[in-house]
This record gives sequence, structure tokens and C-alpha cells, in this order.
Amino acid sequence: MHPTRVHDLEFAQLDLGREQRQGLPEVVYGPGKTPEQIRRIADELLRHNTGPVLVTRVDDATAAKVLDELPGGDYHALARLLVWRPAETDGFELTVVSAGTSDLPVAAEAAAVAAAVGLAVTTVQDVGVAGLQRVLRVAELLQASDAVVVVAGMEGALASVVGGLVGCPVIAVPVSTGYGASLEGVTALLAMHASCAAGVTVVNIDSGFGAAMAAHRLAWAGRRRA
Amino acid sequence: MHPTRVHDLEFAQLDLGREQRQGLPEVVYGPGKTPEQIRRIADELLRHNTGPVLVTRVDDATAAKVLDELPGGDYHALARLLVWRPAETDGFELTVVSAGTSDLPVAAEAAAVAAAVGLAVTTVQDVGVAGLQRVLRVAELLQASDAVVVVAGMEGALASVVGGLVGCPVIAVPVSTGYGASLEGVTALLAMHASCAAGVTVVNIDSGFGAAMAAHRLAWAGRRRA
Amino acid sequence: MHPTRVHDLEFAQLDLGREQRQGLPEVVYGPGKTPEQIRRIADELLRHNTGPVLVTRVDDATAAKVLDELPGGDYHALARLLVWRPAETDGFELTVVSAGTSDLPVAAEAAAVAAAVGLAVTTVQDVGVAGLQRVLRVAELLQASDAVVVVAGMEGALASVVGGLVGCPVIAVPVSTGYGASLEGVTALLAMHASCAAGVTVVNIDSGFGAAMAAHRLAWAGRRRA
Amino acid sequence: MHPTRVHDLEFAQLDLGREQRQGLPEVVYGPGKTPEQIRRIADELLRHNTGPVLVTRVDDATAAKVLDELPGGDYHALARLLVWRPAETDGFELTVVSAGTSDLPVAAEAAAVAAAVGLAVTTVQDVGVAGLQRVLRVAELLQASDAVVVVAGMEGALASVVGGLVGCPVIAVPVSTGYGASLEGVTALLAMHASCAAGVTVVNIDSGFGAAMAAHRLAWAGRRRA
Amino acid sequence: MHPTRVHDLEFAQLDLGREQRQGLPEVVYGPGKTPEQIRRIADELLRHNTGPVLVTRVDDATAAKVLDELPGGDYHALARLLVWRPAETDGFELTVVSAGTSDLPVAAEAAAVAAAVGLAVTTVQDVGVAGLQRVLRVAELLQASDAVVVVAGMEGALASVVGGLVGCPVIAVPVSTGYGASLEGVTALLAMHASCAAGVTVVNIDSGFGAAMAAHRLAWAGRRRA
Amino acid sequence: MHPTRVHDLEFAQLDLGREQRQGLPEVVYGPGKTPEQIRRIADELLRHNTGPVLVTRVDDATAAKVLDELPGGDYHALARLLVWRPAETDGFELTVVSAGTSDLPVAAEAAAVAAAVGLAVTTVQDVGVAGLQRVLRVAELLQASDAVVVVAGMEGALASVVGGLVGCPVIAVPVSTGYGASLEGVTALLAMHASCAAGVTVVNIDSGFGAAMAAHRLAWAGRRRA
Amino acid sequence: MHPTRVHDLEFAQLDLGREQRQGLPEVVYGPGKTPEQIRRIADELLRHNTGPVLVTRVDDATAAKVLDELPGGDYHALARLLVWRPAETDGFELTVVSAGTSDLPVAAEAAAVAAAVGLAVTTVQDVGVAGLQRVLRVAELLQASDAVVVVAGMEGALASVVGGLVGCPVIAVPVSTGYGASLEGVTALLAMHASCAAGVTVVNIDSGFGAAMAAHRLAWAGRRRA
Amino acid sequence: MHPTRVHDLEFAQLDLGREQRQGLPEVVYGPGKTPEQIRRIADELLRHNTGPVLVTRVDDATAAKVLDELPGGDYHALARLLVWRPAETDGFELTVVSAGTSDLPVAAEAAAVAAAVGLAVTTVQDVGVAGLQRVLRVAELLQASDAVVVVAGMEGALASVVGGLVGCPVIAVPVSTGYGASLEGVTALLAMHASCAAGVTVVNIDSGFGAAMAAHRLAWAGRRRA
Repeated sequence: MHPTRVHDLEFAQLDLGREQRQGLPEVVYGPGKTPEQIRRIADELLRHNTGPVLVTRVDDATAAKVLDELPGGDYHALARLLVWRPAETDGFELTVVSAGTSDLPVAAEAAAVAAAVGLAVTTVQDVGVAGLQRVLRVAELLQASDAVVVVAGMEGALASVVGGLVGCPVIAVPVSTGYGASLEGVTALLAMHASCAAGVTVVNIDSGFGAAMAAHRLAWAGRRRA
Repeated sequence: MHPTRVHDLEFAQLDLGREQRQGLPEVVYGPGKTPEQIRRIADELLRHNTGPVLVTRVDDATAAKVLDELPGGDYHALARLLVWRPAETDGFELTVVSAGTSDLPVAAEAAAVAAAVGLAVTTVQDVGVAGLQRVLRVAELLQASDAVVVVAGMEGALASVVGGLVGCPVIAVPVSTGYGASLEGVTALLAMHASCAAGVTVVNIDSGFGAAMAAHRLAWAGRRRA
Repeated sequence: MHPTRVHDLEFAQLDLGREQRQGLPEVVYGPGKTPEQIRRIADELLRHNTGPVLVTRVDDATAAKVLDELPGGDYHALARLLVWRPAETDGFELTVVSAGTSDLPVAAEAAAVAAAVGLAVTTVQDVGVAGLQRVLRVAELLQASDAVVVVAGMEGALASVVGGLVGCPVIAVPVSTGYGASLEGVTALLAMHASCAAGVTVVNIDSGFGAAMAAHRLAWAGRRRA
Repeated sequence: MHPTRVHDLEFAQLDLGREQRQGLPEVVYGPGKTPEQIRRIADELLRHNTGPVLVTRVDDATAAKVLDELPGGDYHALARLLVWRPAETDGFELTVVSAGTSDLPVAAEAAAVAAAVGLAVTTVQDVGVAGLQRVLRVAELLQASDAVVVVAGMEGALASVVGGLVGCPVIAVPVSTGYGASLEGVTALLAMHASCAAGVTVVNIDSGFGAAMAAHRLAWAGRRRA
Repeated sequence: MHPTRVHDLEFAQLDLGREQRQGLPEVVYGPGKTPEQIRRIADELLRHNTGPVLVTRVDDATAAKVLDELPGGDYHALARLLVWRPAETDGFELTVVSAGTSDLPVAAEAAAVAAAVGLAVTTVQDVGVAGLQRVLRVAELLQASDAVVVVAGMEGALASVVGGLVGCPVIAVPVSTGYGASLEGVTALLAMHASCAAGVTVVNIDSGFGAAMAAHRLAWAGRRRA
Repeated sequence: MHPTRVHDLEFAQLDLGREQRQGLPEVVYGPGKTPEQIRRIADELLRHNTGPVLVTRVDDATAAKVLDELPGGDYHALARLLVWRPAETDGFELTVVSAGTSDLPVAAEAAAVAAAVGLAVTTVQDVGVAGLQRVLRVAELLQASDAVVVVAGMEGALASVVGGLVGCPVIAVPVSTGYGASLEGVTALLAMHASCAAGVTVVNIDSGFGAAMAAHRLAWAGRRRA
Repeated sequence: MHPTRVHDLEFAQLDLGREQRQGLPEVVYGPGKTPEQIRRIADELLRHNTGPVLVTRVDDATAAKVLDELPGGDYHALARLLVWRPAETDGFELTVVSAGTSDLPVAAEAAAVAAAVGLAVTTVQDVGVAGLQRVLRVAELLQASDAVVVVAGMEGALASVVGGLVGCPVIAVPVSTGYGASLEGVTALLAMHASCAAGVTVVNIDSGFGAAMAAHRLAWAGRRRA
Repeated sequence: MHPTRVHDLEFAQLDLGREQRQGLPEVVYGPGKTPEQIRRIADELLRHNTGPVLVTRVDDATAAKVLDELPGGDYHALARLLVWRPAETDGFELTVVSAGTSDLPVAAEAAAVAAAVGLAVTTVQDVGVAGLQRVLRVAELLQASDAVVVVAGMEGALASVVGGLVGCPVIAVPVSTGYGASLEGVTALLAMHASCAAGVTVVNIDSGFGAAMAAHRLAWAGRRRA
């Protein structure tokens, strides 16, 4: 096992070895933390690591307070993401495709996190399967990607269609939009797992972050291997 | 309300007014009935109605016993359907499209019931969305239909794709094939309801019969209106 | 496949071929869109299509803002629907029947959308099966319809009762009213699928819109066939 | 509290005070017990109580073995019920109404248990709401009953319809027949609870026994009060 | 079938025959109705029936507005119930027992509705099975009742314990109190159905009203029989 | 961390350090293993540890084959347990109480495993809460125990009742007996978690083994502390 | 059974015998009670018992009002706990370990309640299994404890890891943090039950209180036995 | 879009363009197909493609029949996989790690499929988190892999632990082993999605095939990019 280091704040134990093990400092999950706690964690991570520092699911007011105390970062409002010291893009082509306008915040999180950790991100929006030509128009773009993140609520059928069009990794993100039988994203999650397109993988509902991190693992392992 | 007549067998009360109200004699649900009970019900229906008489979900052995006593009917093995006095086809074009080979028994039930009640049925098989060109190849056929029944298990995405291609009524049948996250058809049922294609309707899991009857309602009302 | 055209707004890709394929321009789902986005989409649809333009699930304030910028439309408050350029009624008789006063908003959406796309709509309210005579009083009206939309929460039994009374297509809409065992409409959805009345079809919970679109498919295909 | 007596067999503790507290000896649940255990329990109950002794959910082979050793009882095959020393009927009129032929075994258990504990039972079969006239034909019988047990699978709508027709107690029994969205009786159970007919009560899925015991409580309390 | 009469308000169809069929005018479900609608319905019911008129689930403000326009009624705040012309008590002894202080609003609804329709109601509070002596202290009261309503959230075990103590009808009301595994009352509902005490019946979650109406059916049928 | 040792068989990696860490060798889960695999694992565990060696969920035929090759062990048929080298009893008093005869196999597993690891086990059977006196008769025994395992299916109410009677640890085991609303033990599991008796803990459905191991942890920590 | 005493307030029946039976006065569940009710109950408990008096789930405003009227108690804001007359610590070493910062309120409740009833509590925070070294760093502390409470949301894996490291009792508390597939704690609850670490027990979602009470049972029974 | 070719057998439409789009011929899902259908499909795929041909979920008897008619393939019994013309290994290092012996069939499918499509596969078995040292022993192997497939039932915690140890892609496969709260793999699926280890992706329950195909996508895209 790689050597590991833990930094003990009173309210959190930072896993400083993570950058060495996984090529990226620990990412901070914002909800439930005060601006002051976020600032202190981000500060420590900036000090003891060299890569990008990210805080997810942060609202506007919190972001403003944190950036007041710890300037130099950027806030992506739609993605609710705080970033300091973003990574340089190194050429891994990730396409984030979403099915409807309600899926945009999740797609934005996926795109912003992926860009912050160094992927080259292209986004394609409002590509629902009820109008297939919208998918087919971008088929070549999708087929030229190193990986595709598919963000879709409702029945999540876009994951199957894209999964059948491309040979590269497909990471599906179910979204909690829709009503009734959508069951707050559970239907899309189950449907994506039952997909008839082989080898599609799935992350948690609304987890644009998880999809971006899965893409980061692809890029990181690819770089290491090359 | 139309006049109604009830015929009371010891173990069943036959709704003889249904043919007048709905254009079709009561259809018999086979499971849980003995061959003798089926024979007696079919016999009464043949006697007191003029239209086709159907018994659904009948296994081979039961069918053979019933037909021994009440000849003149046909048994469709894959569809598990017994039919006496099928209706003449009157020109309503129904296409039954299914996603994979596991969906064939349900598609067969839909097609056999629909044909027995007088629809002109075309079937298209193994049209999964993971290979879109298989759907696109039959787009014109689908678009020329008076109604389409979509039979699909797993994630049920075919219903959304077909729903977006055609303007006519689309009746989706979730199928209990697949494993794990397919949850015995519940995932497909929910996904079909959450479909992004507007106006797709859904019937019960594995109910090829229900889809055919929904199509019969379309044809019956259309004929009456014409 | 019919020729397809896609119009690319920055935040949405309009499926302009839909009117030709399905007899109706794309309908806009309001939630998650700004008034300005709604206005721009509606404007484009009015420009590039010839049929009615609808925006669903719009609240009063948003509707007022949109109509300020793009006059000529009507807002149906109970149905939360914006309509420009409604279709002429062409004689397809749709009856929308609802079970209780809590089901009225969903029934209103079904009725308003159906009317906007050219159906002749009659509504019947508060017809619960606990007082059967209320259903029986309107049996002839139901039986004379070209299609019936049944809107019901709680146990959704009205769909079975109506399904048994009429021979025409029955589209059931489960409603998320009720409490406890109603499970926010899931119980009604499941019960309507398990209905003992053959050929009843079901749309998503609270989707008056989906029911109206299903009825539009019936009318459109009927017109085409005639 | 009434005085209580417990009789301790090696494998069971008999609640001999129950007859005094509730007007009926403990009823034996058959599954998981050997014929010899059933015989010994029944023997003790016959010895130490004066009322009817019942064993539920017993298959044919077990029943035969038990009756060989402990004659004098009757076995109701469809109801899977063993009865010794049935009670005299005392005039409480119970009607057991069922929706379809698949519901018959559960209805048979309700009827057989109720008769064994002294109720005057009338059964009405195959009264589905898809043919309302079948219910209406028996409305007067139902309205003249002291209580009604409604046995129904699928969507369970019969409970609402009967609940609206009669003023007496209605005990609904969901049945695990049907397929797909019936969810093995869970849909009927939920739908019966969400019923729009006020004051309908529900017992466990397939529990004809439970319904009969609920009716026994009604009759017992009524007798005590009179 | 008893003669039926329907009174058609614009927004509701009153089932005026219900009093004759079931011994009680239709009860009005408050949610989703305006004060003016409630007033008009109550007014009609008072005019065309002779028994008590009830409106359930009404908040304080609505109740005040309605009573301003239609005086002579009483508002029970904890029960959220409006009553005009309550019935005379005729001697049917109903005990409403609840498990904890969180169950009080539901127990209050059961008690207030039952009293309004003429039952003699006794309430016993905070009788949790974790302190059995609290149940045992009231065993004689329970055993002397004509029926018992058990109101309990969490695991609902009180229904089984009371069901074992008394021979009279037991109507269990699951309550949506508790957190986590209580699943908003679903756990209590299921547990009450799985109860080892035979013949316990269950109504919908939080439905004090349903329990009271079930008790009314008992009393009404008992009176009719006597 | 205590030193750890892993023994690598081709098909399994034995955690030989577990006896030192937890006072008990690794217990073998039988299902899915061949008799030969079980024999080899048990042999290794006997060789490299000093405590009791247990294999759970073993059927008769497998047990016979294993004991042929590796004599010296005992097979408890009802508990489906194989034991070699059982521990000496050291005075920790565990009472295993079960609610009905269907719960006996699970209770037997709990008792047999607990005895094999050195606890002094008393079993009490058929103590359902529908006959409270059966619980109250054994209250003193329960109150004198060092810990109580409560085994109950259906609604699991016995856990709450026992939890309120005793001050010692109560470990509840939900059982998958019952039908319908019992949901194969899920209802009992949820109900036990929602229990109104504070400090009751729960293990997995049907896991007599888990309850015995939880009791072993109590006894082991108590011994260590003494 | 120990002698029992019940004190009857108008709105609550206090189980005064509980201190004698279980070594601790009844603990008051705050939600749904007015400050005045809480004060009166606490006052009675302080008067008639000798041990610590606790009220759980109390918000700041309520706590302030109660303490104004009944001084001498302490309010733990994060734990939402009111305590009067805390017990002396007697040496039982409990470690409360939590997985992330979102789990802190539940961990705080467990720690505060345990301390109030006399346990010696150590807390360890932010020990997620995604950085194993954080667990391994505290392995010796955990292994030296008399019992461990594991508080974890999301997938709850920490319970399995800790369960494998220590031999003492492990009480797992699932937490309702996380989103999507976390299903408000249900996933963690199920996962903890399915844990591969034998003998881990589980309490209700978010029930730091339940875990502390389970630990109190351990300590109380241990003391009694010593 | 790449040119696509469809080959139409009577019972299946082969997607011959898939090899060009995705680097692998269509894989055949065995269940529901006759040996003759499998043989004909495999034959066509061998003829019209150049890569490996696989049939999954095939039992022994079917495999034998197919190989009789179409020799040259291999059958992997534990994996239930038929393979003709396996691909050459090209250096992508995949490690398949499983948690217990019950997970072996799923792990075997993942490994056999991955090997057949050209990955270099290493398998590690019986690495449960209840004995952490078993994971830590193989940490370096895992960290040196290009991707890791984690196969685990029960609570699925191994995915989180491995996800935290390695930086490369982690594909988690929930397994339907375990009982009770395992809910046939649904608990593991949900827990893996809720994992605290960022960027872990999940495939369907028991889908060793899906995991291998996801790994194939990684390798294929990596090769293309290199």
C-alpha cells in the first residue's frame, strides 16, 4: 500500500495520501459543513497537496463567504462547485450529453468537475430519444470521444441508445427529475442497469460528481499506462 | 346503459351483454380453471354470442383436453391461446414490435389475440435500441401503422424510441425478462411511464392480451365512428 | 423515416420535424425553464410550425411574464397551461371523467390540452365508485364517446368500472391525491394496471398531459385512416 | 383481565383461557407442524375447551393422517381446513363475495371458517366490477347481510363498490392472484386501504381466515350486547 | 338497490341516497376544497338529509370562515373536524386507545367522528407495550367495550396485544409518526396486517376517520339487527 | 491492530487471526461450498486455532459426508449446524425466546451456535403476544438473564414486549415466516427497528447465527472486562 | 415481574417502575410535546425516580423554555438533548465512531445520551472506509473498548470493517445522510444487516439514542453480573 | 454514424456493424434460445465478423448440443460461457476481486468474458472486509492494475474499500447472494451506488458479463487512443 498520511482537524481527518494513491486530492462534500470548516479544509488541502482542490454542492452564499477568506478560487454557480488550482487539460476527450433541460444542473456538475481535474470536456444538451435525429446528429462526436457521460432522468433511455452507438466507456447518471413513476431518479437508475447496451456503467442519482470522478479514473489510468 | 344479461354457471357468472357493449364476447382467463370449466364457459359463450371466443394463458395439455370436447377451435402454442370463431380482418393495421428474443411469448400473445379479434397484424422482432439501425430500418412500416404495440423488457427504452418516431397510438407492454435491476418487469413498467415520448400508454407486465384488447378498443371505436 | 429538422437554441434543440411526423409541434415542459427560455422556444415553434403551441406546468407568474413578451396566447390557470394558436375542433369526442374534487387539476390539464389540440372535450366531475349511481347516470355519455380519460387517485377503481361500461379506448390517469396507503399515486397506478377490465391503458401519475396526448394520437391516426 | 390458563406441550403453549376471553378456542395454524403435533394440539383443545376446534392451511395428506388418529373431524379441501365440533349457527348473516374464479380458495377459507364458528354464510362468486350488473344483481342480498366479506385480487375495486352499496361492516381480503402489477396481492391490499368507500376494513393478503375471525368478533360482540 | 338521489353542484355531485343506504349522510373530505365550496356542500347536506353533517381535515382558518357563513356547527381543533347536528348517543361503547402522545391527533379524529355519529366513546392514551402494565390496567375497560380502535405508530404492536386481550372487534389505525424504519406509517400498517392476533382489521394510515366509520358500520348493523 | 495471519486455500482465504482478535475462530458459511471444501476448511481451522469450529446452514447429506471424512464433530439437524470442539460453558446466561412454532428453526440455530461458543442457553417456545400471559409467565426468567434473543416473524411485537420487561441486552431476530403483509420477514425487521422499547437491537432476517454471535460478543467483552 | 407503578398525568402515563426494571427512568421523546408537557413529565420523573432524566430531540427554543421553568438541567445543542441529574461514570468504555461530518449530529446524540446514563464515552470522527488508514489508526482504541457504536450513512461499510476488527459488541446506526441511492438511510440499514461481519447489531435510522440505550443495557447487565 | 449492417434471421436480427462500431461482435444472451437458434446465430457471427464470438448464461446440456454442431468453441462451466475464436491478450491488466465463495460464479463470468475479449485477467478470491488484512495483502496488485472489477454480495462494502485504495477505474458488480436484508442483490446495488469512494461505477446485479464489457470498453478506447 502506498504510504498514507492523515491530517487531523478537530472536525475532519484529511486523507493527504489520496493524491499519491489516486492522482487527485480528497474532494470536499459541502453539505453539512460551515463556511469556516470548508475554508479550513480547503486551506489545508491547498497546503499539503499540489493538485486541484474542489468543494461540491456549495450554495452561492457559502461560496461567497469561503472565497472572501480564501481567494483564488472559482465558483461555478449552476454546478454548485468551488475550485482552486484547476488542473491543466491533458487531452482526454470527455463528452457530457444530457437528455433534457431539467438535467442541466447535473450535467453542469459533471462537466465542471471533469474540467477542473484536467479532462477536455464537450457538452451536448437536450438530446432526448423521442427525437432520435438529435442523437444521430452528434453520433460522430460521441464516437470520437474517449468516454461519454450520459445524464438523463425520466426513463433514462438515452444511456442505452448512446451505449449502442459508441465503443468507448459510457458512464450513466440517473437524474431525479420527472414526476410520478420517475420515483425521484430510482426508475432511471434501475432502467440504466437493465440497459440492453452491454458494458454501460452507472453512478448514483444526480451524481454528476461521481461520473466526473469515474472519468478521471479512466484518464488517470490511461496516462499511467501510456 | 346498454341492456345487460348475466348467465349464471355454478362457478362463474358470464357477462353476456359484453359483446353488445364492447363489440367482443367476454374473454376467458385460463389459469385456475379446470379443462371442464373452460369447456363449459366456452360452450356457453359460443352459444349466446356471435363473435370470437378466446381463452388465454392455457397450457398444451389443457388445450388438448378442451379441444377434444369442444372441437373447432385453434390453439396457438407460443401465445398459449385458444380461439374459436376468429373474427374477419377488417383492415386496421397493427404492428407488434418486440425488443429481444425473450420478449417473443408476450409479443406472440399480443399478435394472436389481435388477429383473433380481427386486426391485421404485422410482427417485427428483435429490434433492440442498442442497435438503432434495426429500429430505423422499420420506421416506415411503423409510421404507416394504425397503432403500434411495443413489447420490451429490461429498460423498456424501445417504447420511447418508437413513441418519438410515430404519430399513431403506441401501447407499451413491459416484459418480466431480464434479471437483477429488471425487477421482474417493474423497471420496464416504470420506465415506460416515465417515457419522454408524449402520449405513450402502458398496460400490465407481460400482458400481450391487454395490449391487444387496447388495440381492439381503438379499432372498434374507429369503425363505429366511421 | 420522415425528413427531420432540428433547430438549435443554445439551451434546447427543437425537434421541428415532429409536427410532420406526429401532427403536432413539440410541446414544451415548463418546469426548470426561465420565462425568457419559454418565450424563445415558443416563439421559434410558432415561427417554424403551423399547429398549436403549448407549454405545460407553468405557474401564474411565469405565464404572465411570458405572455407580456409573446402576446396572443391564453393561460388556463387550473390546468397550468399556456396555449397559442389552438387547433380547430374536428369532431373527435373525448370525455374526461374524474373521481373526486382532488382530481380536478389533473382532469383540467387533460381537458385543456386535449381541447387545445382539437378534440371535442366533455368533462364529468366527482364520479366516485362509492356512489355507483353517479357513474351509471353518465353511462350513456361515456358509451357515446370516441375515447374516455379516467382521472382517479386513491384506489383508482373508477378505471375498472368505466372500462367495463364502454367499448372505446379508456386512458387511465392515476392521481397523487390521498394519503397513507395511496403512496402518492403509486397505488392507483398499480391498481389501474391490475384492472380486471381488459384493454384499459395507463399513463404516468398526474399526467393529464400524457392522457391528452394519447387521445390526440387516437384522433390523429383516426383522421389519417379515414 | 379474565383468568388465563396455559397448557404446556413440549412444542407449544396452549392458551386455554382464550375461549373464555374471546368466545372461541385458539385456532391452530397448520404450516410447519407435523401431523402428530397437530393431532396432539387438537386433542388437548378438544379436551380443555367446549367450542369448535379448527386447524387452518392443512394439505390433504396431513389432514388424512390427523383424522386417522383423531376421528370425528371434517376436512374442507378447497378451504384447506380441519374442523371438529363445529358451532351451531345462531343467525348472524355473513355474505362472502368474491371477484373471480382465482379468488375461490380464499373465499372458501373465509366461508368454511365462518360457518365452523357459527355464522350463517352465503357465498356469491365471480362478481367482477368490469361487469357491474353482476354486482347490482346481488345488491339486495348484500344490503340485507349483517356483514360482508369481499375477496378480491388484481386491483381490489370490488371492495369500494360494495363498501358504497351497503351500510353494514365490510371486511376486505386482498388476494395474491394476478400477475405483474398485482405484486402478489400488495396492490390489492394498498388499493383497499386507499378505498374511497368510508369504513371499509382490511385483513392480510389471502387471509380468508382473518376475515372470518373478524366476522366472528362482530357476531360475538353483538350476541354479548343483545 | 335502495333508491338513490344525486344532487349536482357545479363542482361536486352529492350522494343524497347515502343516508338511506348507510345510515349517515355523505361525509365531506376537506382538503382541496375552498371554504365556500365546503359551506355550500354542508348546506345542501343539512337541507336534504336529517343526520349529522361532518367535514374532516379542516384547518382552523377554514373552519372559522365556514362557521361564519353557516353557524350552528362545532369545530374540534385537535381532530380538525367540523360537525353540525351531531347524532344522539345510543349506547354502543367504543374505546379508542392510543400508544403514545404522537398518536393523539389521529386518536382525536377517531373519537370525535365516532361521537358525532352517535357512539359512546371512551379514550385511553399513552398505552405503549414497552410498559405492559399500562395495557393491563385497562384490560377490563377494553374487554367491556363493544369495539376497540387501536391507534399506534412505530411498530404498531399494541394492536396485537389488544387483539389478544379482547373478543370484540378491533380496528387498528397505523400512524405515520416515528422516523427511519417507521417509513411514515407503512411499517405499522404491514405489522398490523401480519398481527398474530386473529381477526384484527386495519384501516388506512392516519385514518382516524376510517376507523370511526368502521365502528359506525358495526353499530348501525347491530342496531338494525336488534 | 493485533497481528493477523491469513491461510490461503485455493478457494478460500482463512482469517486465522480472528480467534485472537475476537475470541473465536472464523465461522464457516456452508451454502455454496462442496463437502470437500467444507472439510478442508474445517480441518485447517481445527489445526491452526484452539477454539470451537462451526459450519452453518448445512443440510443432512452434506453434514454426513463431511463427518465421514472429519469425525469428532456433531450435527444439529434442526439448527443445520456442524460443530467440532465446542467451548466450555462459562456462566453467561442467554435466553432464546420464540413467538411461534414456525420460528423454531431460527431459534434452534441461535441456541445451538450460542451453546457451541460457550454460553449457557435456555430456550422458551411459542410465546406469542396474542396471549400475554405466556410472556408474563416467563418474565422472571427473562429478567434474570444476562441477555435475551427474541425470535419472531409476523409483526415481531414480541421484541417490544420483552424489551420493556427486561433491562439486559435484547437481540431481536426477524423471521421470514408468515405470508402476505409479512413480506418474507421485512415487516418484522422494520417493526423491530421501529420498536417503542428503547435499546433493542436487531440482526438480519432468519439470522439465528447473527444473534448468537452478537451474544458471544457480549459475553466475550464481559469476560475480558471482569 | 417486578412491581410496577404507573403515574397518570392527563396526557401521559409515566412508567415509574422502569427505573427498577431497567436501571434507568423512562426517557422522554420530545417531538409532539409542548414545553409545558415536557416540564411536567420531567418534574414528575425527577420526583419519583433517583436516576438521570433525559428528553430527546428537543430544539433550542423548547429547551430554553423548559429550563426556565425547571432549572438544573443541561442542554446539548448538537445532540438536541436535555439532561437533569446525569449519572456518574462507572468505567464502561464506549467508543462512538462516525464515518463523515454529516453523521455528527447522530453521533453526538449517541455520545451525549451514553454519557448522561453513566458510560465513559470516547468519540472518533470522520473515519470513512475510502481512506482505510483512518480506521487502522484507531484500531487499538476500538479494540480496547467495551463496546463500539458505529454511526454511518451512505453505504454503511464502516460497520463491517469495525465489526471485523473488534471482538466486543458493535452497535451500528444507519444515518439518513447521502442522496439518491442512499434512500434516506434505508440503504445503510439494509447493508448493515447484510454485513459480512458476524454479530454486528443494528438500531433504527438516525437513532443515536437507540444505540446509547443498547449500550446502557450492556453496561447495566455487566454491572449486575459482576 | 459508422455504416451499419443487419443480418436478418427469422428469429433474430444480427447487428453485424457492431464489431466495427465497438470492436467486438454482438454477444449472444443464451436464456430463452434453443440450441439450434444459438448455433445458427453463432455460425453467422463467425462468418460475418472476425472477432471472438460469445454466448452467455448457457447451461451444460445446451453447450454440449451447440458444440456438437459447431465445434471449435470452448465451454467454461462455472462461468456458463461459450467462446469461439477468443481474442489475443493485448496487455490490459484487469483484476477481478470477489468477496466470498458465493460470489465465485459471477466473478468467473467476469473473468472468462474479459479473457475471451483479450484482457489479461488476474483473479483474487474470498477477500471480505471483515478481515481487512485479506484486502491489504493484495493492495499492491490492485494498485498496479489497469482496472479492477469488484464482485460482492451482502453489503457490498468491498467496493468502497477497493475504491479508496486504487486510482484506476473500479467496476462494482452486486451479487444476489445472501439472505434476508440482502434483498437478492438490491441492497448491494444500492450500497455500491451510495459508496463513499468517489468514481466507483456499478453494473447490474450478477452481471459479471456487464463488468467485463465495461472493462472491454476501457481497453478498446485506450488502445484506440494510444
